[in-house]
This record gives sequence, C-alpha cells and structure tokens, in this order.
Amino acid sequence: MSTTNLETIVSLCKRRGFIYQGSEVYGGLSGTWDYGPHGVTLKKNIMNLWWKTFVEDRDDMYGVDAAILMNQKVWQASGHATGFNDPLVECSHCHGRFREDKIDTSKCPTCGTKDSFGPAKQFNMMFKTNVGPLADEESISYLRPETAQGIFTNYKNVVDSFSPDLPFGIAQQGKAFRNEISPRDFVFRSREFEQMEIEYFVDPDNWEAEFEKWVSYIADFLDKLGLPKDSIHNLEVEEADRAHYSKRTIDVEFDFPHGRDELLGLAYRTDFDLMNIQNNSGKKMDYRMKDGSKTFVPHVIEPSFGVERAIMAVLTSAYTEDEVNGEKREYLKLPEHLAPVRFAVSPLVKNKPELVEKAKEVYQALKKKYGNVMWDDNGNIGKRYRRQDEIGTPYCVVVDFQTLEDDTVTIRDRDTTEQKRQSIDSLVKS
Amino acid sequence: MSTTNLETIVSLCKRRGFIYQGSEVYGGLSGTWDYGPHGVTLKKNIMNLWWKTFVEDRDDMYGVDAAILMNQKVWQASGHATGFNDPLVECSHCHGRFREDKIDTSKCPTCGTKDSFGPAKQFNMMFKTNVGPLADEESISYLRPETAQGIFTNYKNVVDSFSPDLPFGIAQQGKAFRNEISPRDFVFRSREFEQMEIEYFVDPDNWEAEFEKWVSYIADFLDKLGLPKDSIHNLEVEEADRAHYSKRTIDVEFDFPHGRDELLGLAYRTDFDLMNIQNNSGKKMDYRMKDGSKTFVPHVIEPSFGVERAIMAVLTSAYTEDEVNGEKREYLKLPEHLAPVRFAVSPLVKNKPELVEKAKEVYQALKKKYGNVMWDDNGNIGKRYRRQDEIGTPYCVVVDFQTLEDDTVTIRDRDTTEQKRQSIDSLVKS
Repeated sequence: MSTTNLETIVSLCKRRGFIYQGSEVYGGLSGTWDYGPHGVTLKKNIMNLWWKTFVEDRDDMYGVDAAILMNQKVWQASGHATGFNDPLVECSHCHGRFREDKIDTSKCPTCGTKDSFGPAKQFNMMFKTNVGPLADEESISYLRPETAQGIFTNYKNVVDSFSPDLPFGIAQQGKAFRNEISPRDFVFRSREFEQMEIEYFVDPDNWEAEFEKWVSYIADFLDKLGLPKDSIHNLEVEEADRAHYSKRTIDVEFDFPHGRDELLGLAYRTDFDLMNIQNNSGKKMDYRMKDGSKTFVPHVIEPSFGVERAIMAVLTSAYTEDEVNGEKREYLKLPEHLAPVRFAVSPLVKNKPELVEKAKEVYQALKKKYGNVMWDDNGNIGKRYRRQDEIGTPYCVVVDFQTLEDDTVTIRDRDTTEQKRQSIDSLVKS
Repeated sequence: MSTTNLETIVSLCKRRGFIYQGSEVYGGLSGTWDYGPHGVTLKKNIMNLWWKTFVEDRDDMYGVDAAILMNQKVWQASGHATGFNDPLVECSHCHGRFREDKIDTSKCPTCGTKDSFGPAKQFNMMFKTNVGPLADEESISYLRPETAQGIFTNYKNVVDSFSPDLPFGIAQQGKAFRNEISPRDFVFRSREFEQMEIEYFVDPDNWEAEFEKWVSYIADFLDKLGLPKDSIHNLEVEEADRAHYSKRTIDVEFDFPHGRDELLGLAYRTDFDLMNIQNNSGKKMDYRMKDGSKTFVPHVIEPSFGVERAIMAVLTSAYTEDEVNGEKREYLKLPEHLAPVRFAVSPLVKNKPELVEKAKEVYQALKKKYGNVMWDDNGNIGKRYRRQDEIGTPYCVVVDFQTLEDDTVTIRDRDTTEQKRQSIDSLVKS
C-alpha cells in the first residue's frame, strides 16, 4: 500500500487544474470526473505514449476507433446483456440500494435499520438507452462497458482491408461506461472511463510464447510511465477465479493509496469472442495462413489498460513531500516526458518592462521547441516555484537582471530545488 | 456542389480501411460508424492539428475534457431538456416514424398509405439513460448532445485554478450524441460524432473585434486542412434564423458531395450560457479584470467544429480521378501532413531475400524518422501503387536491384505518378 493519502492527491488535482468532480457546479454526478487543462495534457501524454509504443512503433498492430453505441446483438452474443451483473440489495425501510459485497448487510448504512435487507437481486451494469424514434425492445442499445467488443466486431474488416500476417493485433483507445452501484476511490472506479485495449490474434498452438512476450511488453511500458517496480505486482489468477474460457490471466496490481488493486489485465481468451461472433452473426471468422498451411479461428491474448488507473498510478508514484527551508513542500516528481508543463518561464519581477520583454522572448523560443511551456508570472518567485512543483514542472526558468547583461537565465530544478545559470542559447538548442 | 459521388467515397473508405459501418457484422446500427486503421490516423491527424493550432500554439487557451454523462440540471438549465426537439410524424397504418420536414407527408414513404400522418409531435433528440441503481426521474441522465456545456460548467474551475487574463478560451474535443430520426449522408449526420469546440470569453464591449479575429483564425485552419477556398462559403445567418440570444452567427458551409451544407459554426452567444448556469446553480460566474477596472459575466464567442464533417470535407477535396496508361485511376490527394501513410516501402520483387532485407532497412529508417510509414509488398508493383493511391500515400519507395549497387531507390509521386531515383541517405536525412 502506498503511503500517500488519497485525499491529498484529490485536493492537489482540483487545486492545480488536473481533475475536477464532474458537473461540480450543479452538485456533481457521482462517478464522473472532468479533466482540467493539466489533466488533459497528462492524459494525452499517457495515451499518446501507449499508442506510439503499441501501435505506431510496431509493424504488427492496427488501430481502430469503434462507436460507443453498438447493435445490442453485440452484448447478447458476448454475454454482457444477461451476465454483466452486480449483486444489489435494497433496504426495506429507506429503500437505499447497495452492492451486497461492499457493505455489512446486518444494518443499513444509510438509515441504520437492522436486518432490513432481503436477498440480493442481479443488477446489470450496462447503461441502457434507445436508438431511433421508437423506444421499444428492438431499439435498445447500451453504452459499451468495454472497448474490446469494438475490436472483435472489426476483426474481419481489418483482415479484409489489410491482409495482415498472423500474429497481429488490433488496438483501440476510447470511452467505456459501467453503472457502478458504488463508484469509489477517486477516478479508480468511475462510471465513465477510458480504456486502451489490444486484441492480439495468435495461432492457438503458440499462445503461451506470445503471452510471455506480452508480460514483458507490459513491464516495459509501465517502466516508461515511471512506475517503481516494487509497487507493481503480477498476480497469476487462479483457475477458479478466471473466466471459464481463459487458460491464463494475470492481474497486474499496483500499490494505490487505497490499497493494492488492479492496474491492468492480461488474459488469454482463446477463441471465445470470435466464435461467439461467428455463431451469432453467421459470418466466418477464419484466418487463412498466407502459406496456405492452415485455416483457423485465431486465439486471442488481451492486454487491457485503464487510462484513469494509469493516471492514478503515475500521480501516486510522483507525489512527494519534503521540507524546503523548514517548510513542508508537496511536489509531483513526474517523468519529463509525461509532465503537462516542461518549462515554466517568468521574469524575476513584473514591473520592469525590459525583463518582461526578455522573458517573453525566452518563453516563445522554448515553446516553439517543446510545445508544453507555460508563462507564469503570478505572485512572487517563491509562490511560482511551489505552484510549479505541484504541477510537476521539471524546470522553472527565471529571467533576471543578469540575463540582460549576459543572456543567461536561472534554471531551478524541481526535484533538487537547486538553481543554476545557463545560457539561453544552450537551453533552446540543447 | 462537389462533383464527387458520395457512394464512391463511402466505398473507398470501406475498401481501404478508413471507415466501416458501425456494428456491421451484426447488420449495423444506423447512424454509427467505426474507424479502421487509416481512418483512425486521419482523424488523429486532423484532431491533433486542431489542438496544436488552437490550444498548444496559443497563450490564451485552456483545454478541458469533461465527462459525457452530466447532471441532468445541465440540460434543464441550457434548455435542451425541453427544447432540443425534432418534429416527428407517425403513419397511422404502418406506424413508421419520420422527421416531418424530411418527407412528403401526403403519402407514407414506407407503406405508401395516403394522408396517414397526424400532426407532428416534439421528439427530444437527447439519448436518455439512468445513472445509479434506481431508475427514476432523479437518476435520469443524457448523453451530451454537444461538448459546449462541458466547457461552460468548468469555466469557474479554470478561472479559479489558472487566473487567466481575459480574453481567454477553453477548448474541448470529445464525443457527442444526437438521436437523429434520419441519420444520412455517410458520417455527415450521424448519431454519435466528435466535436471540437471553443468557448472564447470576452469583454462584452469588445465582442465584434474578437469575432472578426475568429473568422480569420477559422479560415487559416481550413487552409491547413487543404480545403479549396472556392468550396468554402461563409453564410451570415439572418436574425430570424439565429438563436434569440445571438447577435451574430456565421455558418461556414462547404460543397459536400450531397450538396452545400454546414461544415462548422461561429456564434456570438452573449452571456446566455454563463447566466443560465449562474441563475440555476446559484454560483457567481463573474470575472474580475486584473487591473480591478471592472467585474462582469464574460460574453462568449463559440467556434464549433465537427470532426466527421472536417474528415468528409478533407476526403471530398482529396478525392480525384484521372487516367494513367489508359486506365481510370482513383486517388486521394491528401496534404502530406494529414495523410495516414507518408511513405509506403516495398522490394521490387518478394522472392529475392537481398532485396527484401534492403527494403526492410529503408522501411525501418523512414519509420524511425516519420512514424507513419507502411510496409506494403502485397501483389505486383502496379497493384501496390493503386492501393497506396487510394490510401492517399504521397510517396511509394521501391527497392530494386540498382539499390544494391548504388544505394538509391525509386520514389514514385502519387499526384504526378512520376518516378525518380534518390539516394537513401538524402531521403532519410532530408
């Protein structure tokens, strides 16, 4: 378990414009979150790194972006329409509803009545809506509870358009929705979230070797996120706890502030999903090896990442407290390639036009080179440093009177708080 | 009107892996579309260009990413819950439902019955669902029909976290949903789509000058998309057709294959949205000028882009037919910075290992430099060129026997079909 307090991170995220409660101005909507300016950039940096690593830099991956609303047959075939349930109990006194496995059912947590719960009912976690002008059984659609089915339903399209060599993968990033009875732990378990999923199609005779490769690809990616190795735990899921069709599943867990919990999953799903589609759509999901040696329905290895959980792991790992000049300091030790702001630039004082003008020049030059550079002249220099520490900005650049003489600036390092002088030239060209 | 036939583009998009019908394997779900590998990249290229242009490269813009599911009070306050309606008529014979203004109501288009329609009913276009374990009036939520309200509801958060100087803008990209009675014209009018919206907060005394600037920013961006100027038409919306609160609105129209239609909108919305939020939430939406000169609720200029419409405009502009060696050729004349594939690399023939090996080297070097480089050795060289033409790949690089002698390759230009030799070195380093 991480030593970081969750409330501390939630509070920093709101204060510094990373993450706000969804619909906050109207009292919120439980289980939804809005990303502020720095949160958007952090999220983009993580999602782009994943896309570059697993799609762009590889030769065996194809990206898709399927619609959130799908034909309900998708969820009938996958089993979600009947089986994607949580056990729900209702208090006979106050009619409060709870997830049975999350409360002590001997006494209602809302009204305090004893023995007020009957047997649990099955509550489907998919959000239901109707598509088209008629609201009837036929027009029912669901907000997808996972992005995976948007990949499987496009497997044949990708094979037809691209004739990929097997093994190959199809990757997708996008929103998914689950009507959690009890959203909890900040963005960890929310009702609306973003997934990054890959279905990797393999020869069934070779799944074990391919699975092992994915264990290693995942470890490499978590390393790129800057997560400490000793906070990551690969849990081999026991047969009794695995989906019936899976012969191997690893839950990659992380020491979150609320405890050790699932960061991502890696599952061998056999041909379960493609066979479901073949049987329910009547369309062949065969893959024919290019050398003509065999034809078969590919088996699937599924690495499934949650964006919000990656963000929480990154924030948890980055959050640090220390003492500077006898005062407590909070900062985010974010890796440079993930930090929303790479350089913050300011003049030492605001009332000297020549300093401001010079600082603007430095700002423009750095921004042109790095993109994510912030102008920050609010408050005195100490306040600016503390603010940028909380944003996780690796370097603060200050233009002072010496700059006007020798074209050097002060660069202050987030982690060491050390300041050194460097020439503008070397900074912009380095 | 464009001379390009819509069906031709739909067919190319499916064949080449740009856009597939949503849930196609199960017979589809009307009004939804899935992006295939090249479509994902084209979409990302357009969305990233927009984000870079309007957020990253500017000093006055803040990005947000709000949840799709919002507290229903948002849509009560904005007027969508009661007013976001289309006129719906139902045939008394076959019970088919239609949008009144899209059909000739003298005769049912489905069953042919005459005078079978009664008066139109108001049909709300928001998709409705319930959030939480109870399905009642209080738990109703909607899939947002626009991203704009996710910006307005975060206005105060951004002001509190960032103390921006006014004028400033908040930008968002994300999905929106409308239960269109009659989705039509490929991705132009779909039920699930992506928006790119900006709310630009200004001093009410200065809205006209700021509005003019946005007219010009938009023209610059459409130029970056490579859209021909004579296909773009700025339509000043007459007072009678504007929203009651708007004092000026421009519909930017484009010559699509189905006719001249709206590509994006630019509206002066006064303080309508912020005042709605202030009145309904009881929270002050004031902005105080930093020099203390005045305090007011900012007025808003809203440039609102649809991603799918931008994609359709780009594809329409790019689609070209000509004749090469007496045969008809179709190709996408995409700007180099938007094309999903920049270079396609192949060996002249596949059965010479030394050619294949050399070609792989060139492929890796180009991929390292440009990212979006494709290996394509399917079929003979003529077939590869035609395939890459349809994908819109500006350059095909072929490694042949001369390459092994002098390290030059053949580069074939998509638009001119001309081939010239160039050294690998100059290609990788240029």
